Amino acid sequence: MRIAANHIAQHNESLQAKHQARLHAVLQETDQAEAIIQKLMAFNVAIPSWALGTGGTRFGRFAGAGEPRNLEEKIEDVGLLHALNNSSGSISLHIPWDIPKDYAAIRELAGSFGLSFDAVNSNTFQDQPGQPLSYKFGSLQHVNKAVREQAIAHNIDVIQHGDALGSKALTVWLADGSSFPGQLNFRNAFENTLESLEVIYKALPSDWKMFVEYKAFEPNFYSMTVGDWGQSLLYANKLGPQAYTLVDLGHHLLNANIEQIVSLLLMEGKLAGFHFNDSKYGDDDLTVGSINPYQLFLIFKELVEGMDARGMNHATDLGWMIDASHNLKDPLEDLLQSVEAIMLAYAQALLVDAAALKAAQLNNDVTQAQEILQQAYRTDVRPLVAEARLRAGAALQPLQLYRNAGVRKALVDERGSNTVATGL
Amino acid sequence: MRIAANHIAQHNESLQAKHQARLHAVLQETDQAEAIIQKLMAFNVAIPSWALGTGGTRFGRFAGAGEPRNLEEKIEDVGLLHALNNSSGSISLHIPWDIPKDYAAIRELAGSFGLSFDAVNSNTFQDQPGQPLSYKFGSLQHVNKAVREQAIAHNIDVIQHGDALGSKALTVWLADGSSFPGQLNFRNAFENTLESLEVIYKALPSDWKMFVEYKAFEPNFYSMTVGDWGQSLLYANKLGPQAYTLVDLGHHLLNANIEQIVSLLLMEGKLAGFHFNDSKYGDDDLTVGSINPYQLFLIFKELVEGMDARGMNHATDLGWMIDASHNLKDPLEDLLQSVEAIMLAYAQALLVDAAALKAAQLNNDVTQAQEILQQAYRTDVRPLVAEARLRAGAALQPLQLYRNAGVRKALVDERGSNTVATGL
Amino acid sequence: MRIAANHIAQHNESLQAKHQARLHAVLQETDQAEAIIQKLMAFNVAIPSWALGTGGTRFGRFAGAGEPRNLEEKIEDVGLLHALNNSSGSISLHIPWDIPKDYAAIRELAGSFGLSFDAVNSNTFQDQPGQPLSYKFGSLQHVNKAVREQAIAHNIDVIQHGDALGSKALTVWLADGSSFPGQLNFRNAFENTLESLEVIYKALPSDWKMFVEYKAFEPNFYSMTVGDWGQSLLYANKLGPQAYTLVDLGHHLLNANIEQIVSLLLMEGKLAGFHFNDSKYGDDDLTVGSINPYQLFLIFKELVEGMDARGMNHATDLGWMIDASHNLKDPLEDLLQSVEAIMLAYAQALLVDAAALKAAQLNNDVTQAQEILQQAYRTDVRPLVAEARLRAGAALQPLQLYRNAGVRKALVDERGSNTVATGL
Amino acid sequence: MRIAANHIAQHNESLQAKHQARLHAVLQETDQAEAIIQKLMAFNVAIPSWALGTGGTRFGRFAGAGEPRNLEEKIEDVGLLHALNNSSGSISLHIPWDIPKDYAAIRELAGSFGLSFDAVNSNTFQDQPGQPLSYKFGSLQHVNKAVREQAIAHNIDVIQHGDALGSKALTVWLADGSSFPGQLNFRNAFENTLESLEVIYKALPSDWKMFVEYKAFEPNFYSMTVGDWGQSLLYANKLGPQAYTLVDLGHHLLNANIEQIVSLLLMEGKLAGFHFNDSKYGDDDLTVGSINPYQLFLIFKELVEGMDARGMNHATDLGWMIDASHNLKDPLEDLLQSVEAIMLAYAQALLVDAAALKAAQLNNDVTQAQEILQQAYRTDVRPLVAEARLRAGAALQPLQLYRNAGVRKALVDERGSNTVATGL
Repeated sequence: MRIAANHIAQHNESLQAKHQARLHAVLQETDQAEAIIQKLMAFNVAIPSWALGTGGTRFGRFAGAGEPRNLEEKIEDVGLLHALNNSSGSISLHIPWDIPKDYAAIRELAGSFGLSFDAVNSNTFQDQPGQPLSYKFGSLQHVNKAVREQAIAHNIDVIQHGDALGSKALTVWLADGSSFPGQLNFRNAFENTLESLEVIYKALPSDWKMFVEYKAFEPNFYSMTVGDWGQSLLYANKLGPQAYTLVDLGHHLLNANIEQIVSLLLMEGKLAGFHFNDSKYGDDDLTVGSINPYQLFLIFKELVEGMDARGMNHATDLGWMIDASHNLKDPLEDLLQSVEAIMLAYAQALLVDAAALKAAQLNNDVTQAQEILQQAYRTDVRPLVAEARLRAGAALQPLQLYRNAGVRKALVDERGSNTVATGL
Repeated sequence: MRIAANHIAQHNESLQAKHQARLHAVLQETDQAEAIIQKLMAFNVAIPSWALGTGGTRFGRFAGAGEPRNLEEKIEDVGLLHALNNSSGSISLHIPWDIPKDYAAIRELAGSFGLSFDAVNSNTFQDQPGQPLSYKFGSLQHVNKAVREQAIAHNIDVIQHGDALGSKALTVWLADGSSFPGQLNFRNAFENTLESLEVIYKALPSDWKMFVEYKAFEPNFYSMTVGDWGQSLLYANKLGPQAYTLVDLGHHLLNANIEQIVSLLLMEGKLAGFHFNDSKYGDDDLTVGSINPYQLFLIFKELVEGMDARGMNHATDLGWMIDASHNLKDPLEDLLQSVEAIMLAYAQALLVDAAALKAAQLNNDVTQAQEILQQAYRTDVRPLVAEARLRAGAALQPLQLYRNAGVRKALVDERGSNTVATGL
Repeated sequence: MRIAANHIAQHNESLQAKHQARLHAVLQETDQAEAIIQKLMAFNVAIPSWALGTGGTRFGRFAGAGEPRNLEEKIEDVGLLHALNNSSGSISLHIPWDIPKDYAAIRELAGSFGLSFDAVNSNTFQDQPGQPLSYKFGSLQHVNKAVREQAIAHNIDVIQHGDALGSKALTVWLADGSSFPGQLNFRNAFENTLESLEVIYKALPSDWKMFVEYKAFEPNFYSMTVGDWGQSLLYANKLGPQAYTLVDLGHHLLNANIEQIVSLLLMEGKLAGFHFNDSKYGDDDLTVGSINPYQLFLIFKELVEGMDARGMNHATDLGWMIDASHNLKDPLEDLLQSVEAIMLAYAQALLVDAAALKAAQLNNDVTQAQEILQQAYRTDVRPLVAEARLRAGAALQPLQLYRNAGVRKALVDERGSNTVATGL
Repeated sequence: MRIAANHIAQHNESLQAKHQARLHAVLQETDQAEAIIQKLMAFNVAIPSWALGTGGTRFGRFAGAGEPRNLEEKIEDVGLLHALNNSSGSISLHIPWDIPKDYAAIRELAGSFGLSFDAVNSNTFQDQPGQPLSYKFGSLQHVNKAVREQAIAHNIDVIQHGDALGSKALTVWLADGSSFPGQLNFRNAFENTLESLEVIYKALPSDWKMFVEYKAFEPNFYSMTVGDWGQSLLYANKLGPQAYTLVDLGHHLLNANIEQIVSLLLMEGKLAGFHFNDSKYGDDDLTVGSINPYQLFLIFKELVEGMDARGMNHATDLGWMIDASHNLKDPLEDLLQSVEAIMLAYAQALLVDAAALKAAQLNNDVTQAQEILQQAYRTDVRPLVAEARLRAGAALQPLQLYRNAGVRKALVDERGSNTVATGL
């Protein structure tokens, strides 16, 4: 299914007057509006292929309907999102769930939606049917070298699939760790993991990056072998210049100051990018911006400031991806809300008066620093984000159009109501 | 020091045009603006007397300057705030730090600023010079009946001071608890505390309320004898209809869903009111709205919905107070920011489309429910709050006027730079 | 499979000398040994039927082998445990996973192992194949009355199954809650849940109890409708004298003082009993005593003290059950370790010098109170627990015997290596 | 005050028979007893000078009595501890609280008690009377270079004091950070701090170490500029081979796996040592081993294993210090309990069957790994620790002797009951 351009145009037309009035109001508040709109138009967030189906918890999964049945339909779903918001222009594949049979055909299909292929993801946290050795006790960390070699080979395989599609990065998220004191020798686990990563690293094409993702807990409940940014950075530094640390918002001990981590990783030149979601208790994988939108803004403030300090390109020099689990909402609606939350936080961050903030900081004027941040945050930037979409031919109100156009119903009609997308 | 009305008028005049344009933009977004402005004008947050001086931590305290040296100057400070924002119309005294010598004179002074006296607070978490028995091991919970009687007598004394000033509530916050396993028999501690509270309860004037405040930890680090809302509610129910549970935002285990607690306490008719602040790690007592403004909004959403369901008066039927510690900012600036954050959250909560939310909930339309909340939250309601101030003769931009008028400098000139307000 | 009594006798014989020496050492330390051994012999912890298979996380499940394929084999597994440790004398069934076809035969089978039927558990957190209405948005809380009625009918059905087997309690654990702000009206959710529970309560036989279990988060990640002990107690009090609050160690916000909750629930006469497990980050459901055995001891100290104060029978007046997830260990080994940890904590708690502790508390002698607790905790009570087993004809070292006897291998031979027990 | 050797001998004599029986029981359980006793005899934990007085919280301080009034009396107090337990053979001074007037006399006094001088501690988290510039907004991180230079000069001064006394390490704990979003530029704060540390580092004598201590929060409540082990390690690596990361048990986000951090820092050759205490909610600074003794054991297990793997000397190659706050207990009693808890955890760690554990790990035998750890942990090692004391001429039961000898009363008689030791 595709949304026709004139369908979008009609939608925009009907909301045009109201939009212009709102936009006008924001334009009074800043002289940076045009620059911000340009940056918003250039910004894109990758959609992971596994987020297009309903997610679940260990207690069960309540299926949705009309879920994509194969890679082609997943690409089609991301294409729908991108047509609506012009900010979801790439897809992040997960191997073995998304092994393409015909690379050229898949690239062509993606291209027809204006989509490219973001980082590819390996999976050594589950056993696949027919797999010779089990990852029950870890993969790259495993005490048995044969298991490590199997996991290494899988990662290299993933690189090859990605390379054939035009991806430029491998994301390695490891469930490796332990659930009980004594289960692991921490040093050996670290050293095995490092040694395994080194082999994979050597298999990277020279223009690729390796993203080393960390996570504090789950699915292991005592230790994780890549457990925090400090550990990930140790690996990345030992691996070399193509290795970076990937931050997932839900992968921290509670109340960690994530924005400070972001700032320091940028300082070290080792930030890979982001997996966005939101959470209250753990890796809850909720819709981005649904629980603590101010934190999201603070993170973007650090990203903008830190990237600008290094002369980085906001749109292309880091990896941006959503990584949430859609247990209760229609996955496509959830993704539209998530991308919107990211664009709003980015716009607010761009609105921060950096010079005034610097002056307040140099003066230890804490009150004023807060005023400057909240002045940007409390500004209603929705018209700026809508304007960026409008100019790119996307929808002023993507979610509204999605609902009015009956997209989900059409997908159910086409795919059936008992489809289950591969994923968690 | 007093801020002259014409000083405020001049300030408002200079900002009028800009304000009107912004207000106009909000008025396009809602037809509830007038009703909201009326409610904002009626709303008031009490200022605790101890928040007018610089706070500290166990590691030390970095004094400010021009702090109020006595009760009269504390009232004067709150008068300044109220003149600026018309939302700080009462003061909450702490005994023994604020024992008035001449009740009539104090009431007259407060009246001259348009201030009334909010809940009075007892202090049994510190020993005062000359105090016969120590609270080192608790007060109302103490194993020694003589200590309990001393603490009871103090609370009754506090009621009498409050009564003479026109207060209508006693807030009992107990540091009682234990720092080590085995130190306390939990049941005996509960029973002693209940018995002590019963005596104090009997001493309440018939039109008074008792606010039983809970706290999860600090200054005791193993158990607190009024440790959570469940315990506080047990006490309040056993005490009787004049006893209520008081919620302080920083007094929970991390990530507690405070808005749900608020909703349930309203359901039970037992919510006393609020101590506002913000925090990231514990009872950090930071400026309201400085860390998680969305949570503050969600709490106000429950307050508005729950109070409306019971036909309660937002402005008068619950106790509203700030309880923060101003370690780094000028206390008056910090309080202005805190009150502003509260008014904004209240305005956003009033803006929620309650009927649409109810419909979404009845339809399990989770996506839409989030849209409705964020529609209200992301609206820039600052012009509504400013308009409410304008109409009441207060300042459009209180903090800006406070700085431009050189209030702190004037206070330092008058009081000196080495003054230390009583408090923590 | 059954372990022959003479097999156990042989095992005990071989360890007898060493055991007697160790026992002798403990007997020097206390004159309460005989009384403690008697209490240990009487104590039993129920095994939930779902704990006999391998557990998993939302990221996957690594199956074990030889898992029980039906209710009969689950009973057989518990029978094995009980033969080994004489402390696992009952089984807690989960409906619909364990619906008996022939009540009399099942009772007879259980009886042949010396087992009785503990509390029965309902399941409204998953949809079953063919179920008319979905629990995706809750069960007893659901906005749709028809869903609530379906869930009520299921619970009543569970009572009937349990009654036919001789159970005396229904455990209601609800996943009901919300994952997003705005999704639920908290009060309505509470009221719907209460109303539903009232119908179920009326269906209880007069000698039954209802256990209302609470949980802070997961599988819902914003609010839980029975979220903490305060909420559970509200329900239990509103329901009536047959309703009680059930405590699961992993169902709290982090670092909650669970032992204080236990003490207060006992004070109120409303403690139902326990679901034992251990955890570091959330509801990790790890082996009891594997992460924080001192906390387990402190909880048992409160249980012993609080039950004694009310003249309760330790063995029979509360419900004791293990509720863990065995993701990495052989489930039967994990259960043997868990039961052992519980027995040790109970023995240590019985060893506490209650009179000396009371004296220290009345004297605020915090140092001494800690000494008294740790004197009991640091005593090696393993010989006492072993002696209790020995006298009852169970094994001195259950885990060692389990391994030496090749139990798992025998089960795999009998059941196959690809069996999957029903459960999570 | 000194405890006479014959007083100790008498005490030991009276407990000898009982001790021998207990020791005999442990000797049956291990053939490592003699080696363990030797290691226990060699082990020492430094006592910080500020721990000899009563601590407090931001809510107040309840003074004890007989507190040391000067450096000489602090040394005397540590001397008392060391005479009692033979495990407190050094003192860690805090400048400016403990500036010696006569180095030679102080060294001689310490020597007379068998004490040496451990790491010296600087203080830039408080302002001292007469100090030209304030640390309100940080010290080594400060935006004002003059403040940084003042803080640098202080640290160099501390090194000189320490050098004159024979110390070999400087501990730098910084309160530097921010309490509000926007207050700091994280990168600048890091870079300023690093630059400042580099100057101090250059002033280190060549046989000195610099201990860079981290802390997650408090007294700053939004960010800390040396906030976790990852940040501390960044500084230490950039500084050079004399810089190390210091771990304080209470300085982490809740539920961090501290033992894994220890293991990795040892792997990197960058672990400085430890500040011991215990906690439930934050940096509660409670008696070591009073809340979670199993965690303490797990940490020691990693220390022993990791140090042995590098051929390090347990007693001398890392810095061991208690850092607790004694709010409720007699500080000397609290310290005796803390040292005892450390010695017990160390003894249990030494008792772990390392070869068997390694085998279980290589076999992914998680059940057995837990058995091995708990076999060591549940063994009553108190007789081993007592025996180590006995052989060194210290007391079998230090706390009991401290009480029976009336030490505190004697100190009060000598020093008065209103003395207040410098410190927090």
